[in-house]
Amino acid sequence: MLEPGATIGILGGGQLGRMLSVAASRLGYRCHIYEPASAPAGDVAYRVTTAPYEDEAALRAFAASVDVITYEFENVPTSALDLLESLRPIRPNRRALAISQDRITEKTFLNDLGLATAPWAAVESESALAAAVASLGLPAILKTTRLGYDGKGQAKLTSPDDIPTAWAAMNGAPCVLEGFIAFDREVSVIAARGLDGSVSAYDPGENVHEGGILRTTTIPARLSPSQRSDAVLLAARILNALDYVGVMGVELFVTAKGLLVNEIAPRVHNSGHWTQAGCAVDQFEQHIRAVAGLPLGDGGRYADVVMENLIGDDVLKVPDLLKARDTQVHLYGKGAPRPGRKMGHVNRVVSGQNR
Amino acid sequence: MLEPGATIGILGGGQLGRMLSVAASRLGYRCHIYEPASAPAGDVAYRVTTAPYEDEAALRAFAASVDVITYEFENVPTSALDLLESLRPIRPNRRALAISQDRITEKTFLNDLGLATAPWAAVESESALAAAVASLGLPAILKTTRLGYDGKGQAKLTSPDDIPTAWAAMNGAPCVLEGFIAFDREVSVIAARGLDGSVSAYDPGENVHEGGILRTTTIPARLSPSQRSDAVLLAARILNALDYVGVMGVELFVTAKGLLVNEIAPRVHNSGHWTQAGCAVDQFEQHIRAVAGLPLGDGGRYADVVMENLIGDDVLKVPDLLKARDTQVHLYGKGAPRPGRKMGHVNRVVSGQNR
Repeated sequence: MLEPGATIGILGGGQLGRMLSVAASRLGYRCHIYEPASAPAGDVAYRVTTAPYEDEAALRAFAASVDVITYEFENVPTSALDLLESLRPIRPNRRALAISQDRITEKTFLNDLGLATAPWAAVESESALAAAVASLGLPAILKTTRLGYDGKGQAKLTSPDDIPTAWAAMNGAPCVLEGFIAFDREVSVIAARGLDGSVSAYDPGENVHEGGILRTTTIPARLSPSQRSDAVLLAARILNALDYVGVMGVELFVTAKGLLVNEIAPRVHNSGHWTQAGCAVDQFEQHIRAVAGLPLGDGGRYADVVMENLIGDDVLKVPDLLKARDTQVHLYGKGAPRPGRKMGHVNRVVSGQNR
Repeated sequence: MLEPGATIGILGGGQLGRMLSVAASRLGYRCHIYEPASAPAGDVAYRVTTAPYEDEAALRAFAASVDVITYEFENVPTSALDLLESLRPIRPNRRALAISQDRITEKTFLNDLGLATAPWAAVESESALAAAVASLGLPAILKTTRLGYDGKGQAKLTSPDDIPTAWAAMNGAPCVLEGFIAFDREVSVIAARGLDGSVSAYDPGENVHEGGILRTTTIPARLSPSQRSDAVLLAARILNALDYVGVMGVELFVTAKGLLVNEIAPRVHNSGHWTQAGCAVDQFEQHIRAVAGLPLGDGGRYADVVMENLIGDDVLKVPDLLKARDTQVHLYGKGAPRPGRKMGHVNRVVSGQNR
């Protein structure tokens, strides 16, 4: 168990790191952010290192100044992780990171665990893509296996004519073709596993994406009691299989045939931001508790919440949102809004005591 | 209205400054802490200046780096405030600070406003103390007019024999003698006033003090509807009279004859920490909103909460508290516990949706 006053190192200095640092402060810890670019998290961190992930001296100094290392960003280069891991514990562990960094590894891991995913095929050439299209049918979506997030590195195929363009758009990177799923809704489970192996999950949220970017999360999700319990059990199975420590986001498709795993994120997750309103312990504190070896919070909630992302020019609505009842506005301290840039989010409490 | 990315200067770097800085980050602001001693707030601030309040160069550099100045500590020396006020706006204003810095000025202000206080008399000598005892009766409590907090600079008198000792304990400082009040309970109103003159108050909390230090605050307080509305109206009258901008804590005694004002604190207040659980906008964010010229939050709450301070060795209970259901643990990042030192607090949600 990390003593109060200890320092937690966080790889990545975006909004997730910012909210992790704030949560760590509530528990008496300090945070040291490592980020190559500008770091909104640095505004509320004890220390910031601005250096590339290739700077061995900076990585060593960072490790020497912290007691444990975590991350808010899963695409940290392997070489940096190799070095850091030799110096300080990294939580969640490297295996979780490796699995989530590669879609093929991830899907193989999930299927081996007995969990269903959308049908998929590895694709390393245009001819392999044509074969995969023949096998999975259309429409389908082609994704690079690595470094994809928020809809980037993806191409939708609706006709065999799309094959050359879609393949060319991937620049020769290894890809995976995913068959389209007829799903009723998308939900996600934000679950945590402690250093002692205990697991705690928040109530699943129902997500709406637009253009590959999360738009809203609504709590509670429209799920039957058995679907709700299946979702949580499935997340727990993933956490246990990975000997995971920290918070994970597990995105699921709800289909007529049951729950399919879309993807996992080995970190706090945008669809868990609602926990800042209506839970005594939010996902950020839950992650810090896990990483620090503290007992997990119970995950209980005492309100219904709708979370809405503020993307690009959505921030222009902030003056009105600040006046809205029972509404929590979170801004990330980023500069000018750009299309697709996550500038903040809003948690609206739609039902609770006195409501 | 302060633009996102602006910097708020905070005089004082204790736990209140720490939680203000965190709240400011939620709204996209940065904080610069000015604190002569060690500053727990510095762990989550954009910048920290460690310098005495007499360091004119440091004060000037601080003012130059911020857009507006607020404080978490009301005993900042007048000379520092004079200089800072010439350089940047200070919110809440100097008058609120001047009034709260001197018990006689404060009681006079309140009485002039038509608000009841405990009977009191100014005391500047042992013979004046004897006269005041004769007039107000015993028991009574002698307090220095300035710099008193958490029960320091106070002496209780139960017999005329206590007069010489009590007076001697004050070291010749100007004092006020307060008559004892038979009160049913102590409550406090955490109220805010915006730059536009709008006022918003949280539901009053019921406070239990031990040895002059706040022990617990329970929401809701046991008040009749008319008492509740009187308490809020009374607080609003104080804020308006001072053309106040920010959050204020107003401590009240509930007596058979009505509400008496005990004291006012021109800042976020320990008895408002419960707002971190069960309100969309807590007192810290409310203060930042006011100081930044943003609209105030509505002050609504969606849960019942009990706040308990962790004083001195109370922190030894933290491992158990972390395991408790619906319990938020806040630690201030201070060093070793000392008797009477506020190390953290706990917000326990005792009733809300699903509870």
